[in-house]
Amino acid sequence: MKNVGYYNGEMGLMEEMKVPMLDRALYFGDGVYDATYAANRKIFETDFHIDRFYNSLKAVKIPFKLSKPELIAELQKCIDAMDSDGIVFVYWQATRGTAPRNHVFPDCEPNLLIYVVESSLTDLTKTIKLISVEDTRFLHCNIKTLNLLPSVMAAEQAKEAGCNEVVFHRGNRVTECAHSNINIIKNGTFITPPLDNLILPGTTRRHYLEICKRIGVPYCERTFTLDEVFDADEIVVTSAGTLGVRVCEIDQKKVGCKDEKTLRKLQKAAVEDFISETGFVPSFYDKL
Amino acid sequence: MKNVGYYNGEMGLMEEMKVPMLDRALYFGDGVYDATYAANRKIFETDFHIDRFYNSLKAVKIPFKLSKPELIAELQKCIDAMDSDGIVFVYWQATRGTAPRNHVFPDCEPNLLIYVVESSLTDLTKTIKLISVEDTRFLHCNIKTLNLLPSVMAAEQAKEAGCNEVVFHRGNRVTECAHSNINIIKNGTFITPPLDNLILPGTTRRHYLEICKRIGVPYCERTFTLDEVFDADEIVVTSAGTLGVRVCEIDQKKVGCKDEKTLRKLQKAAVEDFISETGFVPSFYDKL
Repeated sequence: MKNVGYYNGEMGLMEEMKVPMLDRALYFGDGVYDATYAANRKIFETDFHIDRFYNSLKAVKIPFKLSKPELIAELQKCIDAMDSDGIVFVYWQATRGTAPRNHVFPDCEPNLLIYVVESSLTDLTKTIKLISVEDTRFLHCNIKTLNLLPSVMAAEQAKEAGCNEVVFHRGNRVTECAHSNINIIKNGTFITPPLDNLILPGTTRRHYLEICKRIGVPYCERTFTLDEVFDADEIVVTSAGTLGVRVCEIDQKKVGCKDEKTLRKLQKAAVEDFISETGFVPSFYDKL
Repeated sequence: MKNVGYYNGEMGLMEEMKVPMLDRALYFGDGVYDATYAANRKIFETDFHIDRFYNSLKAVKIPFKLSKPELIAELQKCIDAMDSDGIVFVYWQATRGTAPRNHVFPDCEPNLLIYVVESSLTDLTKTIKLISVEDTRFLHCNIKTLNLLPSVMAAEQAKEAGCNEVVFHRGNRVTECAHSNINIIKNGTFITPPLDNLILPGTTRRHYLEICKRIGVPYCERTFTLDEVFDADEIVVTSAGTLGVRVCEIDQKKVGCKDEKTLRKLQKAAVEDFISETGFVPSFYDKL
């Protein structure tokens, strides 16, 4: 199949699949999701994504019935149905169920939606541009919910400014991007914001910390300001499909790009872990 | 029909209607809505709800195609299909459209979803109980978006505490309820929070201010604190279906219920406007 849509066990092309009008995602965004990449039909960092998904479910009290192995089996079924040995994006969400609209929890089973599409990892030899945007989101950004309208608005604002992402900040404190984490390198130290309710516990952010430990790059989890970002040696944006990409411009000012050595070391290690887990070599790997 | 579901012109029973899996409401909550009540097939305060809906659309940049009269005609079609002379709840939402998941705006037409169900107005001779909950929602509460998970969680918390609603506060400043506005009466003055990005511009809140002017009850739009709520003569919760109901308890403490005269004057005037616009007399009217 050229893509795979899945809803409570039923499968078909995404663009042909339908869901009940009363799925609570439709009118409350009452659900949580997670997403990652697979290559050669192998999901990358499965356990971290699955654990985060169950943490999100717990945070919003959705009584999801499948066990972790059962969920992984459903994801794998969709990936296998794609019949692709390239890189695919795997997305899944659970909602509180299908019921007439009423804020309080309904008495019904949660719904599971999955989709898989052809995709690619961000080319890490490239650089990206950001705009800064005041972070006006809710105070539950550690949960991967379907309430994403502020991220949608910010992503569009970035696009209209000819940029790839935003850097969200609450006052001077930097939080994250619209759908990625942001990290900086200063004097050889990798610095990433601490995990609290203002940022998502990104899997690649975690992966970078693990790599720092393993290969001996100094690292630190602490809040930093927008001023520190402008003054950083490197600014590194991470997400499931972006294993650490360099930022060269924020609000039309040149930034970072002063510590290629540390950056490449981290990027290479991240991509090598992807290769060793999936057996797939991204085309940009040789140029890092 | 016992209820009416509508999606882009197609109609059927809500529980049988389906929508595309790629409607952006499903994975981003990327849409806005409005809702009100109709009786005798006449929508109450149509213009205020319609205007607010178009304000919400504009705020999130959804290029909705129908004009206001065209939208009203679609709502009326659904109400007429109900074949009910009682009170019905009329809900409608527009989403940014149907497209593969990508944060930036897609190039497609918005979707219109409507539903109508039998309902009733809140009995205003009754009293309700609240719990106080820290307001951790986003800073766009003036827009009626589909990003309602924090309101869902709060409403459930109220229900589990044996209460009907929450009073949200940011620190000591009171904002609103999970799906209503909150107002107080002190020394004969009706006090309601000012319109900013922290509260919804409620139609019944607006209606009460209009009534105050008309019948000569002093009123004031200003922020107030949780302490002031506990100390108020009356606490009045308003929403489209709740034309001002009295709060008797917050966090298990007795509150308000000290100025029945002013409260009943306002409630009566509100219900009389409902009767005069729709011709429908709610059963509790005589007891006010």
